[in-house]
Amino acid sequence: MVIKVHGNPMSTATMRVAACLIDKDLDFEFVFVDMATDQHKKHPFLSLNPFGQVPAFEDGDLKLFESRAITQYIAHVYASNGNQLTLQDPKKMAIMSVWMEVEGQNLEPPASKLTWELCIKPIIGMSTDDAVVKESEEQLSKLLDIYETRLAESKYLGGDYFTLVDLHHLPNMYYLMGTKVKALFDSRSRVSAWCADILARPAWVKGLEKLQK
Amino acid sequence: MVIKVHGNPMSTATMRVAACLIDKDLDFEFVFVDMATDQHKKHPFLSLNPFGQVPAFEDGDLKLFESRAITQYIAHVYASNGNQLTLQDPKKMAIMSVWMEVEGQNLEPPASKLTWELCIKPIIGMSTDDAVVKESEEQLSKLLDIYETRLAESKYLGGDYFTLVDLHHLPNMYYLMGTKVKALFDSRSRVSAWCADILARPAWVKGLEKLQK
Repeated sequence: MVIKVHGNPMSTATMRVAACLIDKDLDFEFVFVDMATDQHKKHPFLSLNPFGQVPAFEDGDLKLFESRAITQYIAHVYASNGNQLTLQDPKKMAIMSVWMEVEGQNLEPPASKLTWELCIKPIIGMSTDDAVVKESEEQLSKLLDIYETRLAESKYLGGDYFTLVDLHHLPNMYYLMGTKVKALFDSRSRVSAWCADILARPAWVKGLEKLQK
Repeated sequence: MVIKVHGNPMSTATMRVAACLIDKDLDFEFVFVDMATDQHKKHPFLSLNPFGQVPAFEDGDLKLFESRAITQYIAHVYASNGNQLTLQDPKKMAIMSVWMEVEGQNLEPPASKLTWELCIKPIIGMSTDDAVVKESEEQLSKLLDIYETRLAESKYLGGDYFTLVDLHHLPNMYYLMGTKVKALFDSRSRVSAWCADILARPAWVKGLEKLQK
């Protein structure tokens, strides 16, 4: 049974799923979706994801979308493969879920705007909107203050070990480290150390190489 | 061991957690947080939720925030109480997770803006921003087209049974049914029937009564 990831190497959500599969030591076929020609907005891609967003995921007859749902499926069903990415104790798992929600609800909105404005737009020849950058930086800055406090309590955001919580952050962190927003991370010692730690993870580096080949 | 929910009866996130506890037939103590005096932005509330948002949740020594993480904890740890709110088969659970993400990432942003503009602002004496309403209605409308297709495949959004996916929708649906936005639901037969079905659920009605007492 072959696992397939339909996506684009530039997409943070595609990167998230690829990083998870590699951390779980699972092989997969990468199916390139050409977003420049709006392939993701047309059939047959829409039969894999009615929202017209990458990635879409197939594991045998199971078809999924939404990157964070896909990573949870992988971590749960392939629990014995590769690295453990969830915590087993119900209370620890609950705290991990809290921080997974924080990433999705609080980090993703400003981080994805900053990635779009500062990284993707220059590549595709569009102009950066400075007002959006300023507002997103302010939101991110407040959030990172809370992360700095959290990382005094535990080595990783979700608990004592690297989990899906940290993994979900990787693609946005990777992009932002190449921009002026890096200063927001560098000015907070624990956030800065955590960020350097998770971005140096061999599975992440390998995942990037696989997508960019 | 007493379960405590610190929240406000008007808050959709507070309603979400209360609805889950009642569906699971679990008793809890409701601790009123006065948002009119910014009690949620000050200590000691900030020690329960550093983001200064309601609700916060306590189950013995476990403290949680983020309503969707709280409901997942309740459904998992109290699996044998009340109604089953999750699916057990890993593939079915994965599909449920996809639609849980859809609610959090795609429904919540426009729905919470519409609830704020059309329901909460008039109560607290603020003016509705018509441009925000129009944009949010357009987003919601596209989403409900996808829901209409999804509900042709299964009776509930997450699968054949009522699950956390449907439950997470209840508070926003409850508010929006009292506004002109109801027309967007009424014009789609399956969405309309699904909405009427879940809002008539006895546990939901009982939850509202408990909060509004």
